[in-house]
Amino acid sequence: MINVNEYFEGAVKSLAYNTPQGRSTIGVIEPGEYEFGTSSHETMTVIEGALEALLPGAAEWKTYTNGQVFEVEANTSFKVKTGVQSSYLCVYR
Amino acid sequence: MINVNEYFEGAVKSLAYNTPQGRSTIGVIEPGEYEFGTSSHETMTVIEGALEALLPGAAEWKTYTNGQVFEVEANTSFKVKTGVQSSYLCVYR
Repeated sequence: MINVNEYFEGAVKSLAYNTPQGRSTIGVIEPGEYEFGTSSHETMTVIEGALEALLPGAAEWKTYTNGQVFEVEANTSFKVKTGVQSSYLCVYR
Repeated sequence: MINVNEYFEGAVKSLAYNTPQGRSTIGVIEPGEYEFGTSSHETMTVIEGALEALLPGAAEWKTYTNGQVFEVEANTSFKVKTGVQSSYLCVYR
């Protein structure tokens, strides 16, 4: 079963699936700024486009592009913004 | 606008978006075997999992895993099979 998830009135959409190593989603983010909560450790990889992320405890936004990775601990929140439609892989582990 | 596409009764789902370089989709494929037609040149990258592909003119299936790429010309068809939920990036260029 491939679950389709929509957030922020459809401005973020993702497809959820399972791997032998754990749960993953791939998603697309429309231009804008968003805040996400985490319930488990997340490893985010930008597939195409660019994401600026403000990570927990960080003072400054940092930009991640194709193939670049950032990690977020469980039970916190982080902000993401982008100026172009951007795709990502989120690995819950 | 992020379009959600479903094929093969929901066994393949994808999210379509645009980049400055052209149109892309990211998708997830359930275990099974599928045949896809192409209307433009496609560059497929496996994100997670593994896809076996039988490309136009090829005599044998070849397996592609994380980060590996295959290309398909426009106006032809190719077969894909997988034993696990697998994610991909398809770039229409």
